[in-house]
Amino acid sequence: MAADGTDWQDCRLTYGITPPKRSIPEERRREIAALQTTRITALPIDALIVYDLQDESSRTDVERPFPFLRTIDPLEYAFDYLDEVPQKKIVYRSVSGLDKKRFLDWLRRLEEKGGATVLVGAPSQTQAVRLGLGDAYRLRSSEGPQVPLGGILIPERHQASGAEDARVFRKMDRGCRFFVTQAVYSISASKNVLSDLYYRARAEERELAPILVTLSPCGSKKTLEFMQWLGVSVPRWLQNELLHAHDILEKSIDLSISGFQELYEFAREKGIALGCNVESVSLRKAEIEASVEMLHRVARILGRGRG
Amino acid sequence: MAADGTDWQDCRLTYGITPPKRSIPEERRREIAALQTTRITALPIDALIVYDLQDESSRTDVERPFPFLRTIDPLEYAFDYLDEVPQKKIVYRSVSGLDKKRFLDWLRRLEEKGGATVLVGAPSQTQAVRLGLGDAYRLRSSEGPQVPLGGILIPERHQASGAEDARVFRKMDRGCRFFVTQAVYSISASKNVLSDLYYRARAEERELAPILVTLSPCGSKKTLEFMQWLGVSVPRWLQNELLHAHDILEKSIDLSISGFQELYEFAREKGIALGCNVESVSLRKAEIEASVEMLHRVARILGRGRG
Repeated sequence: MAADGTDWQDCRLTYGITPPKRSIPEERRREIAALQTTRITALPIDALIVYDLQDESSRTDVERPFPFLRTIDPLEYAFDYLDEVPQKKIVYRSVSGLDKKRFLDWLRRLEEKGGATVLVGAPSQTQAVRLGLGDAYRLRSSEGPQVPLGGILIPERHQASGAEDARVFRKMDRGCRFFVTQAVYSISASKNVLSDLYYRARAEERELAPILVTLSPCGSKKTLEFMQWLGVSVPRWLQNELLHAHDILEKSIDLSISGFQELYEFAREKGIALGCNVESVSLRKAEIEASVEMLHRVARILGRGRG
Repeated sequence: MAADGTDWQDCRLTYGITPPKRSIPEERRREIAALQTTRITALPIDALIVYDLQDESSRTDVERPFPFLRTIDPLEYAFDYLDEVPQKKIVYRSVSGLDKKRFLDWLRRLEEKGGATVLVGAPSQTQAVRLGLGDAYRLRSSEGPQVPLGGILIPERHQASGAEDARVFRKMDRGCRFFVTQAVYSISASKNVLSDLYYRARAEERELAPILVTLSPCGSKKTLEFMQWLGVSVPRWLQNELLHAHDILEKSIDLSISGFQELYEFAREKGIALGCNVESVSLRKAEIEASVEMLHRVARILGRGRG
């Protein structure tokens, strides 16, 4: 990897996981990690993403469909438990609960391990914040410029504000070299923000950083509700298809894949470097297998064969 | 045609025009009608639609991009000026300015001519209304049940209210045997309402009436603004494509056709009787030719060859 992390610009396919809950005993954690290591090693991905789960309840008054349980620290999970995974690693880090010293300690640990990061701000304006996302970007620029940095892109935010394209360009100014979306089910919302990004880049004569569209299999009505709770926009027709499907999980894969195919062709015509991040955030065997199937189907769209 | 108008249920492809403005001299009107007669006679359509233009300024405070000019009466234009057009005719009629007697006179004239109608209510709640759409439906049921009746379907209204599917079923109860949408540029909005209509029909074990999706070529930035003024939802990405296109008219046809193809496949999988109405509301030669090209391309999607 180049010192400035430029090869992250070629990153097109990632697999995203959440660390196990802290309540799981050490022995079981290691078993899970061993199974994941075998599975992930075989995937045709450029990098593994390890998420940092946040409660996010401050974002809404609606009750959280699943309880929030703290997980093992994502950096520790990525580089200790999953030490034998050979692919590059991107560690998400929510910064709002950290102070400056703890953030810098964390950044140095990540740099030693050779990882990249996606820094995440507070989920809402109302949550108490020690370190803002802007502060964290400044600290990383001055104290850890070697650590490759990615940003989050939320198509739904663009629907509401029309300003997500400007936000992405500001994040590029602050060092972001790639972007990862929230889980995407609305192809039109995604096309809208990609289109505005493309025309802004053209007008400003700048190169747009690669964008990884996150796909997430949906295995149940409750998971669908949870995604909507998280702010994922699910078009009415797609929600109908899922809720009436004989096999909601398989249907969610088919619809996600055809949606990604449409976005990929849209982006290719415009020369946008579009890739994909497949999320696997469930511990259910069927949903894990679904995420692996989804990843291989995306790999074929990207021109990467199985195996 | 059957007395109850059932063969209108097989109507899948129409061409929609507006009558010439009243300010045009009689001689020129006849020239326009002769040109239209030749053009329309050659089209592979099931019926010709003649619109009844309304001002619609009561719907919004934003200034109307084009001035509103009264046209020749649509019934008169359809059956007098376009007398030699051999295809069936659907005459739109805005009822809010009529009283009961004038509406019934009009309905009898239409019945004599063998035409169908789409009745249109007031464009907004604020406009003074003599005859409501519900009153007009009741009068047609009691006094002119032989006159085939269609209804308007507005996908954008479903985005806002989520109740357009229920409205369509109420209109079916009141005698509507087919539906025509407002001009459609948002495929996701259209899929959303089609999906809800499909699942509602399934739940209520009723057959859904055929739906004609209206496509409208867009030849200029000002036409685009006018469509948006009329309440047509144009997704941001599609608006960008049109505004940056080398040839906005050709681009609007390509995007409309690929959108219709997507809707048609979506509907076919579900057994929804989806057809198309191609609008030609401009007097510019290029836009008229564009509408004819569009119609032939839709005909091919519907499995009807050219000529």
